[in-house]
Amino acid sequence: MLHGQMMQTPLLISGLIEHADRHHPDVEIVSRRVEGDVHRTTYRDLHRRARQVANAIGGLGIKPGERVATLAWNGYRHLELYFGVSGSGSALHTLNPRLIAEQIAWIINDAEDQALFFDLTFLPIIEGIASHCKSVRHWVAMIDKEKMPASSKVNLLCYEDLLAAASDHFAWPQFDENTASSMCYTSGTTGHPKGVLYSHRSTVLHSMAAALPDALNLSARDCILPVVPMFHVNAWGLPYVAPMVGAKLVFPGGALDGKSLFDLFEAEKVTCSAGVPTVWQGLLAHTEANNLRFSTMRRTVIGGSACPPSMLRLFQEKYGVQVLHAWGMTEMSPLGTVSTFKGKHDALSAEQRLALQYKQGRAIFGVDMKIVDADGQDLPWDGKAFGDLLVRGPWIVDRYFKQADSPLRTDAGGQGWFPTGDVATIDADGFMQITDRSKDVIKSGGEWISSIDIENVAVSHPAVAMAACIAARHPKWDERPLLVVVRKPNAQITREQLLAHYEGKVARWQVPDDVVFVDAIPLGATGKMLKTRLREQFKDYRLPGA
Amino acid sequence: MLHGQMMQTPLLISGLIEHADRHHPDVEIVSRRVEGDVHRTTYRDLHRRARQVANAIGGLGIKPGERVATLAWNGYRHLELYFGVSGSGSALHTLNPRLIAEQIAWIINDAEDQALFFDLTFLPIIEGIASHCKSVRHWVAMIDKEKMPASSKVNLLCYEDLLAAASDHFAWPQFDENTASSMCYTSGTTGHPKGVLYSHRSTVLHSMAAALPDALNLSARDCILPVVPMFHVNAWGLPYVAPMVGAKLVFPGGALDGKSLFDLFEAEKVTCSAGVPTVWQGLLAHTEANNLRFSTMRRTVIGGSACPPSMLRLFQEKYGVQVLHAWGMTEMSPLGTVSTFKGKHDALSAEQRLALQYKQGRAIFGVDMKIVDADGQDLPWDGKAFGDLLVRGPWIVDRYFKQADSPLRTDAGGQGWFPTGDVATIDADGFMQITDRSKDVIKSGGEWISSIDIENVAVSHPAVAMAACIAARHPKWDERPLLVVVRKPNAQITREQLLAHYEGKVARWQVPDDVVFVDAIPLGATGKMLKTRLREQFKDYRLPGA
Repeated sequence: MLHGQMMQTPLLISGLIEHADRHHPDVEIVSRRVEGDVHRTTYRDLHRRARQVANAIGGLGIKPGERVATLAWNGYRHLELYFGVSGSGSALHTLNPRLIAEQIAWIINDAEDQALFFDLTFLPIIEGIASHCKSVRHWVAMIDKEKMPASSKVNLLCYEDLLAAASDHFAWPQFDENTASSMCYTSGTTGHPKGVLYSHRSTVLHSMAAALPDALNLSARDCILPVVPMFHVNAWGLPYVAPMVGAKLVFPGGALDGKSLFDLFEAEKVTCSAGVPTVWQGLLAHTEANNLRFSTMRRTVIGGSACPPSMLRLFQEKYGVQVLHAWGMTEMSPLGTVSTFKGKHDALSAEQRLALQYKQGRAIFGVDMKIVDADGQDLPWDGKAFGDLLVRGPWIVDRYFKQADSPLRTDAGGQGWFPTGDVATIDADGFMQITDRSKDVIKSGGEWISSIDIENVAVSHPAVAMAACIAARHPKWDERPLLVVVRKPNAQITREQLLAHYEGKVARWQVPDDVVFVDAIPLGATGKMLKTRLREQFKDYRLPGA
Repeated sequence: MLHGQMMQTPLLISGLIEHADRHHPDVEIVSRRVEGDVHRTTYRDLHRRARQVANAIGGLGIKPGERVATLAWNGYRHLELYFGVSGSGSALHTLNPRLIAEQIAWIINDAEDQALFFDLTFLPIIEGIASHCKSVRHWVAMIDKEKMPASSKVNLLCYEDLLAAASDHFAWPQFDENTASSMCYTSGTTGHPKGVLYSHRSTVLHSMAAALPDALNLSARDCILPVVPMFHVNAWGLPYVAPMVGAKLVFPGGALDGKSLFDLFEAEKVTCSAGVPTVWQGLLAHTEANNLRFSTMRRTVIGGSACPPSMLRLFQEKYGVQVLHAWGMTEMSPLGTVSTFKGKHDALSAEQRLALQYKQGRAIFGVDMKIVDADGQDLPWDGKAFGDLLVRGPWIVDRYFKQADSPLRTDAGGQGWFPTGDVATIDADGFMQITDRSKDVIKSGGEWISSIDIENVAVSHPAVAMAACIAARHPKWDERPLLVVVRKPNAQITREQLLAHYEGKVARWQVPDDVVFVDAIPLGATGKMLKTRLREQFKDYRLPGA
């Protein structure tokens, strides 16, 4: 083949912060710190300190290709590590502090992390696991010297000491863009967590695609507050996108309650945010209770789990904040789809537009997707047929860290597709809607019932705080839906009232067979309902009439 | 190094049309044809016909890596060739019909084009050059069978016949993303034209960057009418960006007069356009004369040469059309900078914002730039220092086709930079402003005078239609500015009145030494003033007092 004759410039993460330094030197990064205060820096200073990080980790003996872990909130020091570690050719491994200590230790050992940088909040975790993590040679507290703990069971280094001793002269190495840049473990509900190893190429391409007008639409006119944690699929890529486009960044640290967030939004003139539905529940509870309005917020990305229609409507109609309903996975860097309109949708009514936004949306450019039946045959894009959702593209996992087996399914044309584990419909305009997780779908007779549809009806009732729909065994139908419900404080509702609420909202045969009221539904480390636990708890449940 | 474990999905041009077919099948491509009518198709049909093109050129014996030329207006058949030829692994070579026939033949021979597809408008050119183009095995007229010329000196094939005979079953080959995809020759003012060979990678990355909110901000809600020709640096990339984002495309064919364009803008509800200042002059003359307003146009990209401030103001203030002042080159795919605002500019007055837009703007992500003095030393980004503008990035030329010598300049760090031939300032916010072409700058004493600044003042006078400022020899100052002016029809203005118009607008020593009124200024094939000709014409000009 004849090659083009354009420059061979590798797509590197260091290029993102270099671009921000050259083109947006004075744009601010504002962080609520573990120390309690609000800290301000700029992309120029952040770039300088990222170069110090690169020298510091070199001084600690960390080599290119080795993994460096973090256990930290969203903040400027964490961002310095994003660029300093990846930029120098090592892989940044962001740990989820919401996992149990044993699981964190297991992950550290699997990744063979050589150093671990942590916010002081997490010192108890560190002290609990340090002796079990043989690969870790350095434990670094991300704090000023004067705030360092007086003593600890673990031999701690001080982040600010390390940086103060490091030169800020460092030329970012140029290397193959397929080099590993960073790493996240999936919170698998079965088996051990699995590591996803991102590359510089996948990260930069994902950043470009994420910023596009049909995706998150981010520009130098934005001020972004990522509520989604930097330990959760790299805060959906926002720490990379922001310097790429020169947007101001605001980090909430560990203060994720409604009041703290709202105050930060207003004080820093945030225009755009991103997070899971549970975070927005807290924020909206605060604004509703205090009759507050956002003065600069224009839009927010909601993902991680489906955005309840009532939340979408409240944000847009009462608060004038556009909701970008999005879907993705750790294995997808994470962005797969965003619900943004096409030109043809200008003609729709407000209600029709809302109905479209309830879907998880269209594939962003670079992501290809399809739905297949149990035999792997393509299903039509008619908005009705649902099947296993498969994806492919340059920021989608090829295989897991240290796993010999490929997770991909190969189609008739020899093309590999990643099975998402989600069940979905896709309509003629390419709008995808998750109807269930493969393992959560309820198989009643030959028909599938979407647990999510059933849950959405339940939470639309004013007395319901949370609802999970799981399959209960049934002698005739194999499985039938059982609804597990948490009532709102002081709210009253009976089984019969709740079941009557389904009338006209779903087909008769999809209405749950029974309702169980509980005090709480167990949640996983990323805020998702742990249906595996519920299924275990209700595995012998006897449905009425069964 | 440790590699990431993400999918190795090559960035291919076929992926753009596949994406449009899957996600935007019903979006229209509307073309005013050589036949005279308005033709409508969709991305799904366009993709089908692009596959037929791939089969058809295979049937003609065209192999991957070989060049296939076009001599055509903006239209759907040209777009089919964009995807059919590049997608199958050959390189699409777009020829500029505004060049003289000898030059076109020279370029075809240099590129060794194997086939040439042309609009019937250009049959006289084809008949003039065919016998001189030994590499071309097939001459294909892009027209229906019934409109084919009854006879021709050249053995012609009919495009629609070829497609009708070709199957639409074709699986786009997957290959190295660095494979050559397309080719343009620069309209060099000295020496022979030089070929720039784009790759699939450079084209797809350029498309992603061009669509970003800080660049051209293109989405599935847009309807794009590229006035800039598809033979002029791939219409600035818009034929690739539009299917990538699912925008409707409207092609004007050869009808580029103000009335034809305006009528098409209105009939097709165009939201965004792109072209050189001379095209907009024609369009605005039509709207001004007939007191018309655009009902859907929201913004237009203006590049190719500097947008006159008066045009920028007229578009924005009277017509409510946002101007995206842009700069690029054939060697840059072409996009380098776009003048879009940052968050901090919200605080500026309307006049201050206009002043920023007069600059060519900020580097789009992926392009790095700097200005250097005659010794290659970096100059400060203070908006005042001006020097040679150098660029680098993944869609910037590395070397010219068949040229052994690299055009790049290597800096102290070993990094290669492409010298643009432009002289520019860059301010602290990264806004670049072209002050001149390196060869057009006027060297008066030790000081440089920007010919563009002097021309802008001249054309701001209501009696001036066009103005070129060139250097005239001067015994004391080496060079002094001479202004060559075309008056507007029936307008009166004297040398003294025009020179008085400079008062307070430029420094006294920058005011031209003399004014010559002419009937016309020679223009090149891309509409730029041919200062080389003027310099030749006035090489013995005696300035007053010299």
